[in-house]
Amino acid sequence: MPEPRESEKAITKRAEDYGRWYTDVIAAAELADHSPVRGCMVIRPHGYAIWEAIQRALDRMIKKTGHQNAYFPLFIPESFLKKEAQHVEGFAPHCAVVTHGGGQKLEEALYVRPTSETIMYTMFAKWIQSWRDLPLLINQWANVVRWELRTRLFLRTCEFLWQEGHTAHATAEEADAEARKMCGVYRTFAEEFMALPVVSGSKSEAERFAGAETTYCIEGLMQDGKALQAGTSHFLGQNFAKAFDVKFQTQDGQLAHVWQTSWGVSTRLVGALIMAHSDDTGLVLPPKLAPIPVAIVPIWKGDEERKATLGAANDLAGKLEGAGVENVKVDDREGLRPGAKYFDWERRGVPLRVEIGPKDLAKSQVMLVRRDTGAKSPAPAAEGPARVRALLDEIQKGLFDRAKSHRDAHTFSTDRYDDFKKRIEEAPGFYALRWCGSGKCEAEIKEETQATLRVIPFDSKPDPGPCVKCGANAPGKRAYFARAY
Amino acid sequence: MPEPRESEKAITKRAEDYGRWYTDVIAAAELADHSPVRGCMVIRPHGYAIWEAIQRALDRMIKKTGHQNAYFPLFIPESFLKKEAQHVEGFAPHCAVVTHGGGQKLEEALYVRPTSETIMYTMFAKWIQSWRDLPLLINQWANVVRWELRTRLFLRTCEFLWQEGHTAHATAEEADAEARKMCGVYRTFAEEFMALPVVSGSKSEAERFAGAETTYCIEGLMQDGKALQAGTSHFLGQNFAKAFDVKFQTQDGQLAHVWQTSWGVSTRLVGALIMAHSDDTGLVLPPKLAPIPVAIVPIWKGDEERKATLGAANDLAGKLEGAGVENVKVDDREGLRPGAKYFDWERRGVPLRVEIGPKDLAKSQVMLVRRDTGAKSPAPAAEGPARVRALLDEIQKGLFDRAKSHRDAHTFSTDRYDDFKKRIEEAPGFYALRWCGSGKCEAEIKEETQATLRVIPFDSKPDPGPCVKCGANAPGKRAYFARAY
Repeated sequence: MPEPRESEKAITKRAEDYGRWYTDVIAAAELADHSPVRGCMVIRPHGYAIWEAIQRALDRMIKKTGHQNAYFPLFIPESFLKKEAQHVEGFAPHCAVVTHGGGQKLEEALYVRPTSETIMYTMFAKWIQSWRDLPLLINQWANVVRWELRTRLFLRTCEFLWQEGHTAHATAEEADAEARKMCGVYRTFAEEFMALPVVSGSKSEAERFAGAETTYCIEGLMQDGKALQAGTSHFLGQNFAKAFDVKFQTQDGQLAHVWQTSWGVSTRLVGALIMAHSDDTGLVLPPKLAPIPVAIVPIWKGDEERKATLGAANDLAGKLEGAGVENVKVDDREGLRPGAKYFDWERRGVPLRVEIGPKDLAKSQVMLVRRDTGAKSPAPAAEGPARVRALLDEIQKGLFDRAKSHRDAHTFSTDRYDDFKKRIEEAPGFYALRWCGSGKCEAEIKEETQATLRVIPFDSKPDPGPCVKCGANAPGKRAYFARAY
Repeated sequence: MPEPRESEKAITKRAEDYGRWYTDVIAAAELADHSPVRGCMVIRPHGYAIWEAIQRALDRMIKKTGHQNAYFPLFIPESFLKKEAQHVEGFAPHCAVVTHGGGQKLEEALYVRPTSETIMYTMFAKWIQSWRDLPLLINQWANVVRWELRTRLFLRTCEFLWQEGHTAHATAEEADAEARKMCGVYRTFAEEFMALPVVSGSKSEAERFAGAETTYCIEGLMQDGKALQAGTSHFLGQNFAKAFDVKFQTQDGQLAHVWQTSWGVSTRLVGALIMAHSDDTGLVLPPKLAPIPVAIVPIWKGDEERKATLGAANDLAGKLEGAGVENVKVDDREGLRPGAKYFDWERRGVPLRVEIGPKDLAKSQVMLVRRDTGAKSPAPAAEGPARVRALLDEIQKGLFDRAKSHRDAHTFSTDRYDDFKKRIEEAPGFYALRWCGSGKCEAEIKEETQATLRVIPFDSKPDPGPCVKCGANAPGKRAYFARAY
C-alpha cells in the first residue's frame, strides 16, 4: 500500500491547530508546495489559476483607472537603492545580492528588487520633462524578493509575485488623491471579487512604507481573529523625486519636483482568500475567483447510464459556457466513484457541484450542491443554467456576508488597557482603541500584547478621550489594533 | 527651443543603416529604453502592450493544448544546476549569481534562473509517482537572466521575459511528438498572429539546447536578410530525468524514468515583429497584435466642427467595439494639428487610421488610411465598421504575404561553396546547402562566412549529393544556413 499523497491526507481541524489546518488545506487542494530554495514556494497549477483570476480582474480595474503596464529590470544597482535614506534602511538588510555575473565579480553589487521605486524613478527622471507628461501612471506585474526569516506559503515568502503601481503628479493633492483612489480600488476588489470585507484607512508612522509620507491600507480579519494586511498604497510626497531628481517644467515655466505614489498587492491575496473562507473540509473559493466555478459529476453504472448522464452533463456545461459561466468541468473520469469525485472537488474549493444520476434524469432534474453551506437542492433540468448562475451569485454574496458577520463579531472597543490585554488573548480580533499618536505607546502595546496598529479607518469619526496606554489626550479617531499575519 | 525627444527625432533609413533604423523605430514608438542596469532594458507601455497581446494569444493556445500554468522559484541552488553535465556547461558561465541574502553570505550560491529545467524537475520528481500522473504538462511565464556581452533591445538582453513549457511523458515517442507539436504551435502563432512566415525544423547538434537530444525551432527572415530564431522546442530524452531522478511506476509495475520536453518563446518576438514589418516611417504592426488597431482622428476648426466630427468619431468607435474591435483610439487631443496626430500614430504602428473631417461628414463618409501601404480610401459612413474590419483582415494578410514574398525572394540554393561565400555577402538570406552532417564542416562554414546552420526544414525532401564544404556524401535534406541575430 503506497503512502497517501499530500492531497489525500486528512485535513487538521481549525479548532485543533489553525496553522496546520492552513497548510493542510493548501496541500489538499494542491495550491502550492515548499521548494528546495530557502523560503521560496512553488505555486502549483490550481493555486496559480487563482492568481491568474486575481490578475485578470485587478488588471482590468488598474487599466480602467488610466494606468499602463510596463516592465523594469529585476536588478537594482546598490548605489540606486542607497539614494533614499529611509528606503535603503528599510529594504537593504532584506535583499538578495548578486555579486557575480558572467563568471566575473561585478564592480557594483546588484540587488534583486525588493520593490522598484529606485529603478523606476531613474527612468521617470528621463521621461518626465514638462507638465504635459504628467500624470505618469505606470503599473508593473513582477516577482520581487525579500529575505524573510520565517516564511509561510503565500502569506510570507522570500520571492513573491505582485503588481506595483508607480505614479508621478504635478501637485501633492493630486498624488494623495491617487494613493487614496488606489486604496479604494483595492477595497472594491477585495470586497467584490474576494468576498473579503476589509477596513481601509491610514497606517501609523511606525508601520509606514520605508520612504513614504503616508501609507494607506486595507486590512482583513481571518477566521482565527488575526488581521491580515491585504494591500497598501503610499503617498510618497517628494522624497523619491528629490533623491532621483524627477523634475518637470510647470505651466508657468518653473522647475519643480513631482509628487509620487506607489501601491501594491501580491500573491499574499491567495493566502487571504484561503484563510477567509475555507473550512475543515478544505478550500472554499468565491465563484468570481474560482478557476473552476462549477463541477458537473455524472453518475452511472454501465454504458447506457454513462451515455445518458454524461450527455446531460455535457449539455449543461455547453449551456453554461454559452451563458457566460466559463471553465465548467465535466468530471468524466473512469474508475473513480462519485463519492471520491465529490471529495476531490470539495477539497479544491469548487463553489458549486452539479450531480446528474439516472434518477435525476428520470425526474428531468439536476442536483445542485453548494460548497459553502453544503446545501443540496434539485432544480428542473430546463432551469439548470439559470439556477446555477443565480446560485453562484448567492454563494459569492453568502461568503461575503459570512465573513463580514465574523469580522463584525470580532471587532471590539475598549477604553481600559488591562481589559484589552486580557480580551485579546481570549477573543482575538480588531480592537478599536484610543491612542495618543505616540510611537512609544504603540511600541509598548506591541511589546506587551503582540498587537500592532493595523489601521486608522477612513470611515469612522473622531472620538476624543484618554489614550488607552498613557492616558494623555487622544484627539482623533480610534485606531484598530490586532495581532496580525 | 528644447531638444527634441527621442520619439520626435528622425528615423534613420533602412538602406542607410539597418541597425540604427531598428533602434530609431523603437525610440520613435516608445517601445523600450536602455536601463542603467548593464544589458537590461525597460519595456515601455506601448512595447509591453505588444507583449501582453502576444501573451494573451499564445497563452490561449498553450492552454488549449492541455498545459497548465504554474510558477517556480527565481533562484536555483548551484548544486542543482550542476546535476546535468551539458546543461551546466552551457548555462553556468552566463548566469548572475546571488552570494548574499538578508545581510549574510549564503552557504550555497543561488543562480538566477537562466531557464528552469533543474528547479522544475526537482519538483516533478516529487509529484510524479505513477503512469496516472503522466503526461505532466506545465507552462511558466517568467523572467530569466543570461549574462550577454553584446545586447540589443528585445533581441538579446541580459534579462528577458518568456514562457517556458516543461512536460514529462511515459514514452520517448509521446515526448518527441509533444516537442514537435509545440514547435507547430509556435509556427501557427508566428504565421497567424505575427504575420511572420517561418521555416520550422530541427537544429544541428552544435546549435542544440544544452542538455537536449533534439532541438526543433522556427526561423524567420528579417528585411536585411538575416535569420532570427523565434522559438525553440526541445526533446530532452531522459537526460534530466536521470539527473533529477524523475521516475514513475509503469502500468505493469516497473519503475522507469520519464521522457521530457521543454519549449519557449520570449520578448525577442517583439524584436522580430518590429524587424519583419516596419518601414522607414516607423513601426508597422499586424492588426492581431496591435495594442491599438485603429486610431480615429476627427478634424475640426472651431467648436461646431469639433462637436460634429468628434461625435462621429466616438460613434464609429462605439460601433467598432460592439463589433469586436477592441481598444480603438479616438484622438481628441487639443492643440495638436491633424498632421501631427497622423505622424504620431504612424510611428506607433497603428494599422489603420480613420480620418473624419467636415468634408467627410458632408459626404457621409469616412477616410480610411492603411499604415502598411499608405493607401487612402473613402468609405460610406454607414459601412464604416464593416469596412474597417475587412481592411484589418486585409492588412493582416497583406503583411504576411509581403513578408513571405521577401523571404522566398531571399531563399537560395547553391552547390558551390565559393558561390555561397560570395553570394551571402551580396544577397543575405537563407541558403539551402547540402551538408554532410559533420560539426567540423559546420564550424568551418561559420568561421569563414559568419553563417550558421539555422534549421533543417520539416517540410522538405531529402536531396542527396556532395557536401558543399567537404564534398563527402550528404545523404539527407538540405540545411538552411544564414547569418543570424
